[in-house]
Amino acid sequence: MDTLYTHTSIRTFSSKQVDDTTLTRIIEGASRASNTGNMQLYSIVATRNPEKKEELCTRAHFNQNMVRQAPVILTFCADLHRFSTWCKLRNAEPEYNNFLSFYTASIDAVIAAQNACIAAEYLGLGICYLGTTNYCADAIIEILELPHLVVPVTTIALGYPDEKPELTDRLPHRGILHTETYQTYSKEEIHELYSYKETSEIYKKFVTDSNVSNLAQVFTKKRYTGENNKLFSKKLLETIKKQGFTINF
Amino acid sequence: MDTLYTHTSIRTFSSKQVDDTTLTRIIEGASRASNTGNMQLYSIVATRNPEKKEELCTRAHFNQNMVRQAPVILTFCADLHRFSTWCKLRNAEPEYNNFLSFYTASIDAVIAAQNACIAAEYLGLGICYLGTTNYCADAIIEILELPHLVVPVTTIALGYPDEKPELTDRLPHRGILHTETYQTYSKEEIHELYSYKETSEIYKKFVTDSNVSNLAQVFTKKRYTGENNKLFSKKLLETIKKQGFTINF
Repeated sequence: MDTLYTHTSIRTFSSKQVDDTTLTRIIEGASRASNTGNMQLYSIVATRNPEKKEELCTRAHFNQNMVRQAPVILTFCADLHRFSTWCKLRNAEPEYNNFLSFYTASIDAVIAAQNACIAAEYLGLGICYLGTTNYCADAIIEILELPHLVVPVTTIALGYPDEKPELTDRLPHRGILHTETYQTYSKEEIHELYSYKETSEIYKKFVTDSNVSNLAQVFTKKRYTGENNKLFSKKLLETIKKQGFTINF
Repeated sequence: MDTLYTHTSIRTFSSKQVDDTTLTRIIEGASRASNTGNMQLYSIVATRNPEKKEELCTRAHFNQNMVRQAPVILTFCADLHRFSTWCKLRNAEPEYNNFLSFYTASIDAVIAAQNACIAAEYLGLGICYLGTTNYCADAIIEILELPHLVVPVTTIALGYPDEKPELTDRLPHRGILHTETYQTYSKEEIHELYSYKETSEIYKKFVTDSNVSNLAQVFTKKRYTGENNKLFSKKLLETIKKQGFTINF
């Protein structure tokens, strides 16, 4: 249980491989997760092949070395393909090529992914989520040969840790928890919530390294810029549509 | 750890309340979850007030009695509002009103939600996810007073179990796990994957009760129909847009 409270992302893995028994236990953890109508509208693609990992690393995951180094990459996909195939074989008309089905299947895929992470950490492994999955879903679809109605949602790099990072900071609970209704934040509250980050030495280095005026600008000008957000939004929407999901108002 | 492998959704709760220490521990579990760039782009709204729960129950959650009965309802939201407010106060231009930001924040909200569920189950509580969150996001926004750039993603009903349901079935691992590349399914494989469900007495009763020919038709003709999928897709997309996120190609 401590695993939940001491989680840190692992980005450096030892050379120790993940054996099949361990992977099976992790997949079983994922599969026990809550999901919509017990339809299990997700699939997991496990990549161990070094060439495939290299391809994922360079074409989809911004060349992050951990993708190369982790013995297993698990790509969690929203999958309406399998369920629809079953329906068609049973003279039932599947109409799951829509935004709602895609979005709820995405939620199911993420719940399963987080269960896999917790199972893995409990077994002594480390994980790191790869947000790049949503930037380069199109490349992942090609590399993993994902069919119609299957879209990658999130990826975890999986292996045995070769580092022991410090616990990272989090906002105080009052920053994320609202009672009964959402309470918008006053200037003072925002200052109080973010002051820990803004005065920490780690984050101060980010500001200096990024050559910007403050921490917020590290995010808006360097890490998550408007230009990239717009570009990757368009790309992601086009990919979802290309995989067969209708997005209309 | 067993909690992960023995999870069943709880829909009947005892009258025992969830004390603040327990809720704090659950929120702490949620907050330790992995999230994009440690921006924590989610918020959790806790509803305990009986009138508020009644409103959520009738207006948003299809009158499912567990919403009334559970001592706490936790609504997990994608939240770009708090972060954008901080940016604005720091002379940083937040451009997070786009589909990518909404979608990645949704993923973060779900990872946090699943951590909350596991923490809760470890502490002896039970949970049930409410998929209705995505059908009636507009009503939830009104009831919980969610501001611009905040959208509810998933909800959990939380409390002490007053039932002990059997473990539900899952597809065999080969049905959800793919090695290296996605393997599409032959007719025989689909038959093999779904035969357990199709021959189980529980599901046979679904077919009889729904007055349809087979289990697949229970889903396509009764539980998740094309008509509803289209209607709720449109509604959800309009709600996301109304909360300030641009969805364009």
